[in-house]
Amino acid sequence: MRLLEPIEINGMLLPNRIVLPAMVTRLSGEDGYVNQDIRDRYLRFAHGGAGLIVVEAMSVHGGKSGPLLRISDDSFIPGQAEMVSAMHDMGPSKVAAQIIHFLKIARSGWRQKVSDLSREEIRAIIRQYAEAAGRVRRAGYDAVELHMAHAYTLSSFLSLRNRRPDEYGRSLENRMRPMTEAIRAVRAEVGPDFPVGVRFDAEECIKNGYTLSDSREMALRMAKLGCDWVSVSAGGKFEDAIHKPGEPLYPYTGYSGDRCMPSVNYPDGANIYLSEGIKSYLNQKGYRVPVVATGKIRTPALAESILVESRADLIGMARALLADPDWPRKVIEGRSDKIVRCVYGNVCKALDENFRKVRCVLWPKGALQAPLIQDSAAPEWTYGEANLIAIEVAGRVQLKWNHADDDLAIYGYEIYRSADDGPFDHLTSVKGVFYVDDHVVGGVRYRYWVRAYDLGGNRTPRSNTAEVMLPDPTLLPAASPK
Amino acid sequence: MRLLEPIEINGMLLPNRIVLPAMVTRLSGEDGYVNQDIRDRYLRFAHGGAGLIVVEAMSVHGGKSGPLLRISDDSFIPGQAEMVSAMHDMGPSKVAAQIIHFLKIARSGWRQKVSDLSREEIRAIIRQYAEAAGRVRRAGYDAVELHMAHAYTLSSFLSLRNRRPDEYGRSLENRMRPMTEAIRAVRAEVGPDFPVGVRFDAEECIKNGYTLSDSREMALRMAKLGCDWVSVSAGGKFEDAIHKPGEPLYPYTGYSGDRCMPSVNYPDGANIYLSEGIKSYLNQKGYRVPVVATGKIRTPALAESILVESRADLIGMARALLADPDWPRKVIEGRSDKIVRCVYGNVCKALDENFRKVRCVLWPKGALQAPLIQDSAAPEWTYGEANLIAIEVAGRVQLKWNHADDDLAIYGYEIYRSADDGPFDHLTSVKGVFYVDDHVVGGVRYRYWVRAYDLGGNRTPRSNTAEVMLPDPTLLPAASPK
Repeated sequence: MRLLEPIEINGMLLPNRIVLPAMVTRLSGEDGYVNQDIRDRYLRFAHGGAGLIVVEAMSVHGGKSGPLLRISDDSFIPGQAEMVSAMHDMGPSKVAAQIIHFLKIARSGWRQKVSDLSREEIRAIIRQYAEAAGRVRRAGYDAVELHMAHAYTLSSFLSLRNRRPDEYGRSLENRMRPMTEAIRAVRAEVGPDFPVGVRFDAEECIKNGYTLSDSREMALRMAKLGCDWVSVSAGGKFEDAIHKPGEPLYPYTGYSGDRCMPSVNYPDGANIYLSEGIKSYLNQKGYRVPVVATGKIRTPALAESILVESRADLIGMARALLADPDWPRKVIEGRSDKIVRCVYGNVCKALDENFRKVRCVLWPKGALQAPLIQDSAAPEWTYGEANLIAIEVAGRVQLKWNHADDDLAIYGYEIYRSADDGPFDHLTSVKGVFYVDDHVVGGVRYRYWVRAYDLGGNRTPRSNTAEVMLPDPTLLPAASPK
Repeated sequence: MRLLEPIEINGMLLPNRIVLPAMVTRLSGEDGYVNQDIRDRYLRFAHGGAGLIVVEAMSVHGGKSGPLLRISDDSFIPGQAEMVSAMHDMGPSKVAAQIIHFLKIARSGWRQKVSDLSREEIRAIIRQYAEAAGRVRRAGYDAVELHMAHAYTLSSFLSLRNRRPDEYGRSLENRMRPMTEAIRAVRAEVGPDFPVGVRFDAEECIKNGYTLSDSREMALRMAKLGCDWVSVSAGGKFEDAIHKPGEPLYPYTGYSGDRCMPSVNYPDGANIYLSEGIKSYLNQKGYRVPVVATGKIRTPALAESILVESRADLIGMARALLADPDWPRKVIEGRSDKIVRCVYGNVCKALDENFRKVRCVLWPKGALQAPLIQDSAAPEWTYGEANLIAIEVAGRVQLKWNHADDDLAIYGYEIYRSADDGPFDHLTSVKGVFYVDDHVVGGVRYRYWVRAYDLGGNRTPRSNTAEVMLPDPTLLPAASPK
């Protein structure tokens, strides 16, 4: 399986192609130091065995930032070093730190823009990136990733909305200038033998934003500058963010936020066309820098096909690994059927948007981390059977079933569905014993079964299969294929 | 060439695979009758020889609508019939009428929503669609196309934002109910032997909007209902429209409007993934209903490759045919090099947004139609040479050249560019003798040439080639491929 093959990146040997992209947790204190919750979160990921774990964005500057990690002076190094060392002790995962600069935002909705920055301030930001990267190396990280995506400073320079009239705006070269200078400064600081990656938007997904036409040139520049990987994201911009009165403007709240973290509305792998566009352009230009794909990649089969079809070199999964940090370990051990499947309901995203600690809705109530429990006893249907019932109510399908019990605790219930004679696919997972399926059309025979699963990943037997068909509204005498 | 092969659609023989999708013109009077400007516009398109010309949306109801065609009672038939007959006299193009229902909007920004409609009102809309389709047939049109895209009534029912709690909302089946009923009513009215097409959004491109996951089911329903073609659009919604104080809310002004009419920022064929997703799903389900692709398809080569790769069955081009209605004729006659190339600057879109008559910025000043002039004398460089100069100014490339003269009139100047040793591609066209190229990066050798063209499509010789290279900011000792 290509997904499980090691890959060497500038001397750093990843044991597999699975990447945890940087993901905000809001677990750190306002002081920006590593605390116990942060440490637990990343040790939990290290237990799972992803090839590369990118620790959440830490700020390169000293600005006020809420509960966000910082690496803006040397005092932050010891806590980081201890965490990284403990992660390395857990297993073969490599660990990178993502470093970020962001501009000021206020509760009034005001925000500082790149057009407000003096050349002096731009130069200071470049220096801060370099110094922070040096601290990352000294903290024992295996690599550093520069955050140039979404709504943050370097991305805002890259934006097609950047109309600065000087050498830092308007033309593609001018927009790339701070990125170029930051990469060069970081490389000079950390030396040639330390892996440096970049995460950036391959498409802004806002009105008058850039698309692959520009981003492929950005990626080419990164490759020419000797970046060691290019991690592809999309959207997550301020320009279409929805302002919540009394709170600072938060990106990811508009359409571009949907595109950054595609929800249940989107097909699997909704953004793969972006990594594909970037990778094919780089390869065509003679560069082999690894490209990381992200965006609702949830199954080992999809991940594998992306690699086999050369649409990316590495597979990034944020929400899927939040739901189950052991996703990689389970694939490696041939226990893919035990993966706790992300349902892409974006409760994690909503928590972040509301400035709350980021957790997965599938975890047990109140848990700050994914459960890690030794439990080999499977749960059982409380009344010996699930008694799943599916009925139509006003053009929707209502499902009900019995509870299940476990000696420790039930995690939730997985719902599988087949349309006509198709395969049973995982539709979603829920914590209760009730679900309404809105994604149904008349004239199709839907069959469902459910099963409960416990914190150890053990499953009940499948429930009975319940069948329902909404009336076919076409009612045509001959609706035959033409 | 596949593009030029005829195709039969329910007895209607299209002479080629080129489709003019319905495009607002704002040329009709407030009364909704065909007038001279409308007639001239569509006769001009008929002269060009597209396989299918879809006349702009005409309203099925009597509501106030500004300068928009109507087909809401029989009094509109004679004017339509005369125009269609004249179009048929022009050449082999087939002619369809697009019919539309829209809800009320006010200058305050208020708009009526599908959740405001009673069941009675919904039934009335369905009846209006059927009656209008009957009039379309009686007017001598070859086909009718039901508008179910963008911000209009049937599309708003299809929307994932439609949360009506009754049988017309929430679930996919409920959202499809008005569409289903409209198609059935139209078919019953026009009979089995009259081609009925549908235009709809394959992706809404708004927050919490639907994507291919839903739209492929919608297309399947259309196929099952016996629709004769499916024309794929995207976006163009009210939900992200920008309200201009004192004017009614207008769709296409937000990000989803960009996605509906992809501008210069987007790669060519930006929305082909949608027609491809729809077509492959339909084919997989055993249906062969032709799928129309649209969205910045400008070259015969791209159009051909879409057909050869089975990503669509027909090629829709709105802006490209607005710029040059003779695009099909020129391809047929082997004069593709004479095509007046759309520059995707979206001035036409901006005119529409500002409630003004829709024209192409490339046309001669004040012209309401694309020029149609017999002129075989090529223009000439006024001073015998173009003297093209390219210089860098603050990270951008400025181009200047001499005027050209023509015995009748100059249309404009085409600018071609090569990057490094790549081919010279059409960069854009302008009406003056000055251009600033923002889409440049350092370290790349850009070469440019320009040529003037007249209203007959004749060209000057190419100008001299001007070369410029911005400094390479990487300045790395070894920027070699890795």
